[in-house]
Amino acid sequence: MKNIPHKIYLTEEQMPKQWYNLRADMKNLPDPMLNPQTLKPVTEEDLYPVFCKELAHQELDNITRFVDIPEEIQDFYKMYRPSPLIRAYQLEKALDTPAKIYYKFEGNNTSGSHKLNSAVAQVYYAKKQGLTSLTTETGAGQWGTALAEACAFFGMDLTVYMVKGSYEQKPFRKSIIQTFGANVIPSPSNTTKAGRKILAENPGTSGSLGCAISEAVEKAVTTPDCRYVLGSVLNQVLLHQSIIGEESAIAMQLIDEYPDIVIGCAGGGSNLGGLIGPFMRDKLNGKANPRIIAVEPASCPSLTRGRYAYDYCDTGKITPMAKMYTLGCGFMPSPNHAGGLRYHGMSPILSKLYHDGYMEAVSVEQTKVFEAATFFAKKETILPAPESSHAIRAAIDEAIKCRETGEAKTILFGLTGTGYFDMTAYNSYLEKTMSDYIPTDADLEKGFAGLPHIPGIQE
Amino acid sequence: MKNIPHKIYLTEEQMPKQWYNLRADMKNLPDPMLNPQTLKPVTEEDLYPVFCKELAHQELDNITRFVDIPEEIQDFYKMYRPSPLIRAYQLEKALDTPAKIYYKFEGNNTSGSHKLNSAVAQVYYAKKQGLTSLTTETGAGQWGTALAEACAFFGMDLTVYMVKGSYEQKPFRKSIIQTFGANVIPSPSNTTKAGRKILAENPGTSGSLGCAISEAVEKAVTTPDCRYVLGSVLNQVLLHQSIIGEESAIAMQLIDEYPDIVIGCAGGGSNLGGLIGPFMRDKLNGKANPRIIAVEPASCPSLTRGRYAYDYCDTGKITPMAKMYTLGCGFMPSPNHAGGLRYHGMSPILSKLYHDGYMEAVSVEQTKVFEAATFFAKKETILPAPESSHAIRAAIDEAIKCRETGEAKTILFGLTGTGYFDMTAYNSYLEKTMSDYIPTDADLEKGFAGLPHIPGIQE
Repeated sequence: MKNIPHKIYLTEEQMPKQWYNLRADMKNLPDPMLNPQTLKPVTEEDLYPVFCKELAHQELDNITRFVDIPEEIQDFYKMYRPSPLIRAYQLEKALDTPAKIYYKFEGNNTSGSHKLNSAVAQVYYAKKQGLTSLTTETGAGQWGTALAEACAFFGMDLTVYMVKGSYEQKPFRKSIIQTFGANVIPSPSNTTKAGRKILAENPGTSGSLGCAISEAVEKAVTTPDCRYVLGSVLNQVLLHQSIIGEESAIAMQLIDEYPDIVIGCAGGGSNLGGLIGPFMRDKLNGKANPRIIAVEPASCPSLTRGRYAYDYCDTGKITPMAKMYTLGCGFMPSPNHAGGLRYHGMSPILSKLYHDGYMEAVSVEQTKVFEAATFFAKKETILPAPESSHAIRAAIDEAIKCRETGEAKTILFGLTGTGYFDMTAYNSYLEKTMSDYIPTDADLEKGFAGLPHIPGIQE
Repeated sequence: MKNIPHKIYLTEEQMPKQWYNLRADMKNLPDPMLNPQTLKPVTEEDLYPVFCKELAHQELDNITRFVDIPEEIQDFYKMYRPSPLIRAYQLEKALDTPAKIYYKFEGNNTSGSHKLNSAVAQVYYAKKQGLTSLTTETGAGQWGTALAEACAFFGMDLTVYMVKGSYEQKPFRKSIIQTFGANVIPSPSNTTKAGRKILAENPGTSGSLGCAISEAVEKAVTTPDCRYVLGSVLNQVLLHQSIIGEESAIAMQLIDEYPDIVIGCAGGGSNLGGLIGPFMRDKLNGKANPRIIAVEPASCPSLTRGRYAYDYCDTGKITPMAKMYTLGCGFMPSPNHAGGLRYHGMSPILSKLYHDGYMEAVSVEQTKVFEAATFFAKKETILPAPESSHAIRAAIDEAIKCRETGEAKTILFGLTGTGYFDMTAYNSYLEKTMSDYIPTDADLEKGFAGLPHIPGIQE
């Protein structure tokens, strides 16, 4: 057992030089995104007002299996990557399990999560096209921080529409984004038509992610040489995040391991889609058959209780429609839901893989998640993000099953980030004021009722 | 240039198995600590009520050159160490300097700093002696977090006296410490005689580090099987922190480098004393002659403007007296001073080395420090702690000198931690409300006036 070190870091030479595009190995591709005006599959050109050309291409490219990572992005990756693959010796010991538990830890960078992997790519391509500024929205703030870091590095202007409630409750997140030179605007704001409309109707609102997206998109399409960028759900994001899985597979190979179970938390799917890449590739190609488990909050259960249907990607219904597991674009998790993983839908790629039986999904309640997070912190000395802790919960549950059956399974999970900015939630867990909420079937029906009707496709 | 990777991680086999005790190579030892009752040099036995036996031994051991790191501590280190030695390629490029800049980054752990290196050692030895609980004080909270992590891991009870002002202004720091299971008490409190006295005299006080130390020490000596632990200044702390320097030296050897200049921030000296170990060893033994620079805040200038004298280690004057550079144990930095590095004295070992000319010291003003911090963050993607940024400032200044002279010097500095919990200070820098303060000579004279009179030793 002592032959495997606690942490495996790849050398720069061992680091992947290419991203992996899962779609190239899928026998059945996700249904195409639809242009909400024409109801026809979107073309790259349809996306140009919103995304820069290379990213529009990556979004729709179902064919290219491996995409070269530009050297400038590789150099940026080398500042904070490789991330370590960690053997959880102390967690295993505490659980008294024969299972071997590994986790890929993406939290050792200032953004605090894996989000930086895609942020740097999106900024690089925009800069290369000669664009001068970007817009985005941020809720919890990890994506906004990651993007601000990348924009500071490449010299791009950035405007972040931050959900007003977060802006007020998380002033430190705002300050970090500002420290990297970005302009942070509480949303809804007076800087856009969409924002002014919402403010006029509801002056006291604390905003929503959907509203912030609408403002950011409007700002991008009405500003010269500006584009909008997004940190999850999109195919391009899964492509960039594949660095997580490719590094994991190389590191496991170095120690002669292969996971029996791969576990990732799932909100929009950026981390999960990146982590599972090489293992799903083996599965699609019949080379291996690991279990792949998506873990989502019981309060926002898009995979386990959602519909597989065409839906808008945003609450404002201005984006293309994607075929995905969704709770309806009007769905909002209960106010007691802590942390991220609150998106109404799931990456179309992951939705299709789940629909076709390549992936399992479980949902967990948040008090169980924080119980796992606290236990993990005390044994492995890392304070995990609430999102990541969904994967910890499932990994612990699988390891306990191994204790019961005596099986020495190899478990790999993704630890996407750290919880420094989530202490309000940890506090409520500690003080036992945290509650669980599982939407009723009637709650979910309300969300499904808002799914779009598309003649001939979705009646 | 591209042959040297951005980051060097030692393998577990390459990691140091021993700490290094600087005193063993000093021709002239620091003057002994004095027992404030007897005015005689303290003995190990004198220290037993406060420190566990092994730590009391380490505190006074001037002879043992290398101390084996117990296997349990090595195993703990392997969870978050080795820390990377990073080549600051992007910072060099931005400064257009021929200098080669390296930094040893100690912030990639949940405590957010190097403090964990000594916390785990102190908890381990206390546990091994059969003690059941520990007390400490914390101001900014990094030490309290580190100690809580170590206590959670080894199953020790911990009470942290947190300066009331910090307790109220940094609720998230408190929550992290509580998440690891420690008991956090705002100081002054009703739990000690010292606290009750201060509260009676000044009910509205927001507390001070000196008062929190007094409460923690009182609690330790009046509780069965309990001891007090401290995160800086002490000789034992420098011993444990030597892991920083030893790792740095091994990593530099692997890439065939040796620093011309070693730079560390200096408050009580825990980081600086650890970082410089192997380089100071070479200097003391005539094998090399690197410049070694301590960087301190202009608002708390113990080395550059303090007296080399015997003084108490705490404001309450209950600890032994140490010969060190000091501003007087009553000295308090101006209220506009942000972050740590606010201790009135300096490690007796470092004080002696500085006094004997083995080390330089510079002081820097805080707006210049935050300017360097922000510049560094944008280029190297890490948000540094204000404390660490003192070293960044000096490293940048040396690199700029190299640009001017054309010299390709090799600079190594210690990046002790991250700044996630210091956004209030970053904010005031961004909003240009941050000011500088340099104490006047008259201010300093007030502190010196309180230095103890010791018949025959210090009149």
